[in-house]
Amino acid sequence: MRPTDLHMVVPAGGSGTRLWPLSRAANPKFLHALTGTDRSLLQATFDRLAPLCTPERLLVVTGTAHATSVIRQLPELPERNILVEPFARDSCAAIALAAAVIEERSPGAVMASFAADHLITNTAAFAEVVRHAVEGAAAGRLMTIGITPTRPETGYGYLRCSEPARPGTVQTVVEFKEKPSLEVATDYLESGRYLWNASMFLWRTDVFLAELAARRPDVHDPIRTIARAWDGDEQEAVLAEWWPTIPKVAVEYAVMEPAAAEGKVATVPGDFGWNDIGDFETLGELLGRDIGGSRVVDVTGLKDSPPVLVVDGDGVIAVPCSSRVIATLGVTDLIVVDTADAVLVCHRDRAQDIKKLTELLRERGYVAHV
Amino acid sequence: MRPTDLHMVVPAGGSGTRLWPLSRAANPKFLHALTGTDRSLLQATFDRLAPLCTPERLLVVTGTAHATSVIRQLPELPERNILVEPFARDSCAAIALAAAVIEERSPGAVMASFAADHLITNTAAFAEVVRHAVEGAAAGRLMTIGITPTRPETGYGYLRCSEPARPGTVQTVVEFKEKPSLEVATDYLESGRYLWNASMFLWRTDVFLAELAARRPDVHDPIRTIARAWDGDEQEAVLAEWWPTIPKVAVEYAVMEPAAAEGKVATVPGDFGWNDIGDFETLGELLGRDIGGSRVVDVTGLKDSPPVLVVDGDGVIAVPCSSRVIATLGVTDLIVVDTADAVLVCHRDRAQDIKKLTELLRERGYVAHV
Repeated sequence: MRPTDLHMVVPAGGSGTRLWPLSRAANPKFLHALTGTDRSLLQATFDRLAPLCTPERLLVVTGTAHATSVIRQLPELPERNILVEPFARDSCAAIALAAAVIEERSPGAVMASFAADHLITNTAAFAEVVRHAVEGAAAGRLMTIGITPTRPETGYGYLRCSEPARPGTVQTVVEFKEKPSLEVATDYLESGRYLWNASMFLWRTDVFLAELAARRPDVHDPIRTIARAWDGDEQEAVLAEWWPTIPKVAVEYAVMEPAAAEGKVATVPGDFGWNDIGDFETLGELLGRDIGGSRVVDVTGLKDSPPVLVVDGDGVIAVPCSSRVIATLGVTDLIVVDTADAVLVCHRDRAQDIKKLTELLRERGYVAHV
Repeated sequence: MRPTDLHMVVPAGGSGTRLWPLSRAANPKFLHALTGTDRSLLQATFDRLAPLCTPERLLVVTGTAHATSVIRQLPELPERNILVEPFARDSCAAIALAAAVIEERSPGAVMASFAADHLITNTAAFAEVVRHAVEGAAAGRLMTIGITPTRPETGYGYLRCSEPARPGTVQTVVEFKEKPSLEVATDYLESGRYLWNASMFLWRTDVFLAELAARRPDVHDPIRTIARAWDGDEQEAVLAEWWPTIPKVAVEYAVMEPAAAEGKVATVPGDFGWNDIGDFETLGELLGRDIGGSRVVDVTGLKDSPPVLVVDGDGVIAVPCSSRVIATLGVTDLIVVDTADAVLVCHRDRAQDIKKLTELLRERGYVAHV
């Protein structure tokens, strides 16, 4: 592989329901500046990846609803590198579309796929791990970058390695594990053999597509047909014909898990300050400023935003996203999020369950609020 | 006294800080429809009092900031009956101004003064008690209507009667008592000799003004000078000269307490569903609709207001005053108030202390939010 053949892919989808009402179906997490700077998570992802290839070799896969925002946030990105899905068909379709389009444009290239809404603080360490993983991918393996776990997290899936995971070394992934219970997660952490699955994948496009063809022709065949038409006049017609036929399936389930069982998947453990900014607890911890035992997360970049008052309270995480005053009195361990059309008051123990509210709103027909 | 000489006075001032951010200095409690109907507390007060006199004999005393709102809410009220204070000088000045203006217009009339922001559910019983109290006032006594207490309330002042208070009878008030401790309030309730002071006063204007002249010439003299000029061309000039000289003092302290010590004050105990709508606890209890153990107070009269969701929670009092969704998850016994420019989250045990927040906002210069 020539190094210039490295392509970066950023699937930009998912609404981040645990960050409702900040993150919305119509205004998802990756478009927000949850980075401690005025750059959005998507822009920070672009900033991190572009130096590892070039903007010409960086592709974003997104939905029709977000294409305009993505284009505006990433003016450096060539328009042909924004792959717009007619509607979401889960991660396998999104990643396979990117792989197949890259394969058309640059056969046998290495592609690396990273989520649009994760934060990485140590960019240099990240680049080094990517370099290692690209070597494994170029050699024909389906690579992942697993995150060295720092706590018994129950919110992530795990990768089981063949031996205790050592940073910077390529190791075989024996198995993909679903989100575990706290007890199981604690065992994972102690064993040293498990890494967090952060959905970071690297492979040669021809290798991945061959695996997909063998395991899921129902995804592979329409995707290849679409990819062949992608850069021509027939894109829309072919998409309209074939996209609706693609089954919804996650790439882990469709390809990575069965391939791991056959010893074809490997990983490079990474330890570079990764965070998926998955919930308000994380947001408060990472981006909050302390106001006497409580934390305020400034996500709007407003200079003269009104104050957050926490009187006779403690452990409040306040996220002001409108220009309103937030005032609390005599309350502890609450998450208070104020946006233009919704206010959330949630106990911190329940930060993982915010999806219940969006489901309820959807049920009752308040779709615009979700 | 001819019955037609009865004048009603409504001092409409005070911002109701325990109802912040619903009630504001700029948009106080009495202007809000906290009545279970679309009438404001001020309008409900007008509706209750007007039948007892006539609109021509009903006066509202208010500040410059609220004059326009008062005029708009009470189109039936003659403009000359809205007495606008240049700035607030506490209750003695407001009530004395009304008394002195009435004395100029109708010497020796009986006046009755009632707050603009209290709710009374049994109007017929109220009218009957007023009729009794007017008799006492016409006979030359300084009358109050004391509310028969239903709980050991620590948020009100009390009237001590000479004997156990019996409804519908005129009884001497021996003493005015400040807001008591819970222990003292419990003793009051058990003794049967105490009534709540709801600032309902009735007297002959000449009697009251004579008492005021004897005790507080510093209030009386400028007020009489102003009243003599009130209905003429010099009102503004005389107000500008004399109003600023009037000391700030409550009518209880200036007149009623010392007069009670001399046996000149009497009361008719009243039991007519009185409520001062003083805090969100009361508001929830009185005007809230139940949503499975929590209560929603609709004060905006919006037909299609978005929902209030209380998921896995209990005892939440939600007051939506904007068009936003309020969603809570896993919280109990909270007050959540959402307005156009401020959100309050307060433990129900702390409903009495909301003033702390407005003080803090004022200190920090957020005067528009108070």
